[in-house]
Amino acid sequence: MKTLTVELGERSYPIYINHDCLDQADLLAPYILGKQVLIVTNETIAPLYLDRLKAAITGFELECIILPDGEQYKTLDITTRIFDVLLQKHFNRTATLIALGGGVIGDITGFAAACYQRGINFIQIPTTLLAQVDSSVGGKTGVNHPLGKNMIGAFYQPRCVIADTSTLNTLDDRQLSAGIAEVIKYGLIRDPEFFTWLENNIEKLLSRDSNALAFAIERSCQNKAEVVAADEREGGQRALLNLGHTFGHAIETGTGYGTWLHGEGVASGMLMAADLSQRLGWLSTQELDRIKELLIRSRLPVQAPIEISPEQFIELMSVDKKVLAGKLRLVLLKGIGQSLVTEDFDQQHLLNLLNEFPRIDSKSLAL
Amino acid sequence: MKTLTVELGERSYPIYINHDCLDQADLLAPYILGKQVLIVTNETIAPLYLDRLKAAITGFELECIILPDGEQYKTLDITTRIFDVLLQKHFNRTATLIALGGGVIGDITGFAAACYQRGINFIQIPTTLLAQVDSSVGGKTGVNHPLGKNMIGAFYQPRCVIADTSTLNTLDDRQLSAGIAEVIKYGLIRDPEFFTWLENNIEKLLSRDSNALAFAIERSCQNKAEVVAADEREGGQRALLNLGHTFGHAIETGTGYGTWLHGEGVASGMLMAADLSQRLGWLSTQELDRIKELLIRSRLPVQAPIEISPEQFIELMSVDKKVLAGKLRLVLLKGIGQSLVTEDFDQQHLLNLLNEFPRIDSKSLAL
Repeated sequence: MKTLTVELGERSYPIYINHDCLDQADLLAPYILGKQVLIVTNETIAPLYLDRLKAAITGFELECIILPDGEQYKTLDITTRIFDVLLQKHFNRTATLIALGGGVIGDITGFAAACYQRGINFIQIPTTLLAQVDSSVGGKTGVNHPLGKNMIGAFYQPRCVIADTSTLNTLDDRQLSAGIAEVIKYGLIRDPEFFTWLENNIEKLLSRDSNALAFAIERSCQNKAEVVAADEREGGQRALLNLGHTFGHAIETGTGYGTWLHGEGVASGMLMAADLSQRLGWLSTQELDRIKELLIRSRLPVQAPIEISPEQFIELMSVDKKVLAGKLRLVLLKGIGQSLVTEDFDQQHLLNLLNEFPRIDSKSLAL
Repeated sequence: MKTLTVELGERSYPIYINHDCLDQADLLAPYILGKQVLIVTNETIAPLYLDRLKAAITGFELECIILPDGEQYKTLDITTRIFDVLLQKHFNRTATLIALGGGVIGDITGFAAACYQRGINFIQIPTTLLAQVDSSVGGKTGVNHPLGKNMIGAFYQPRCVIADTSTLNTLDDRQLSAGIAEVIKYGLIRDPEFFTWLENNIEKLLSRDSNALAFAIERSCQNKAEVVAADEREGGQRALLNLGHTFGHAIETGTGYGTWLHGEGVASGMLMAADLSQRLGWLSTQELDRIKELLIRSRLPVQAPIEISPEQFIELMSVDKKVLAGKLRLVLLKGIGQSLVTEDFDQQHLLNLLNEFPRIDSKSLAL
């Protein structure tokens, strides 16, 4: 068992990383506060793990809700279904929500927990690599709006996170690669040694070597926990975690939520950010090539969707949460492991990038 | 100008109380952070005050949204309309929301501000007595669910509150009385001198004597600010502010939102709580009569709606946020100016109260 703590004063919480731990009753029990527990999961995860988790929660008033699977369901309307169950079952403000699933389930459940009776307890049990290394850590919860991703939400911390690495054995290859995109991100923004480790070990991750996965998850969570502890509400350095996300969110929104996986949009977006950094003279061609090479080896897209024109990219990116006073701010690279948030670049380079970056038909992703 | 501060550390904020101050540009300006301002108001208030407020906000990118008026519109669906405008207009996370209206506008705008991009700046300009003395102070924001009032929301503090007493001159008599219900509440829960002052001055409030109104608003806000400063998130004594609200919310939900005004439900609910307290031997008959008398003089209902049976009351009250471990907790009185939150009472007295408390046809309220 690996244990990390996200240090946030009275909102500090532990992340447990182990195999076969999602139904470890003594791990869960201390973090359930009242008598009422609602498990929120989805149609893909429920047949795999729901019964095991339920069996670990005895002596409570236990309810479950099974949502449809996919980014296109991360909406206010779907969140309302959680509120409906909570109210129909008379769940009170000491109730606990448990998110059992990937990033979508975690984000929507966390947001429901933040809002129900103005805030109830919740626990994250992430079952995808992406959720284990990213979305379940740091308290960003929320849902999408047709005009922008994650535009409605709250900063709301879980009571604990239980990352069961065994659940990655049932993840499909495309989802595994999408998670690796966020793992690579930590190397790029602040951990050059980890980036090198990934270059040397990427095949182990892809073949689901359990030791390699546990190491990558722990190292990723460590990186994220350090950043979040220093800047919980993204006043400063936390924005670095969004490398590739302004481009990536535009890709996800512009192609219709669920067409590109979040990690795929981030992979393409990170390469766009790296390419722009190289155009600005901040990153060498060799470094850009290393990044592209690692993404290709990780089976991640290194093109942008052909459906989104440069003009649409600009429009979609302009709703990004990092836009300030009308200026587009981006996370860019000054080297592998060195990142910055800046609006101080020649916009012409951005237009050139959007015009020249290679394109791909989104349909090919699912092949 | 009267100025109070709600002391909440880095979330502290001022409440300004004065006549004709809603369009005082130098009062507002320091609390607008970015370049973008969205005023949220309703169909009743817009023709009266919107142009004046707009004229006071120069040099900003200014948008307005006019919502329908009434408690029945305090929903997630209506909140979404605010998100739609914010995204269509590319409002970023430095934008400011201004709530211009009564409690519904304040609650829904505050909740939208809490959730948009995980939290943006907002200012309250309450235009009803109820909002000036209660809902605009203390950071409780949220919307209703068909199964329960204020069940979806957030604790989120405004940057400042501007209470313009002149707006009360355009308030209809029924709304004025509804606000007085919350004023009386402060006397009942913790300020016996204020209760006596109200007994001596209620006619001045009803005739809209500006000095009497300003005094009552300031004293009410002082009481609320003290309670909120001691217990921002309602771990303890803040629950006392809910005197009459468990009954009152059941009345509002059970008769359909908007049929009873919030203050009317609270008035009836406070008398039910007082009656139950008297049945428990905690309040004298004389004290109960004083409360009933003051409510009658304030033109507030002293009956419950005939449409809600005792069984329905129990069902509706059981979703209340104060319910813990299945036990109904109520704010009750041990005297005028002395209140407590308790689940420690004989439920048979509650059933007797619900069976015996006088009833009224809700239709008669609007006459």
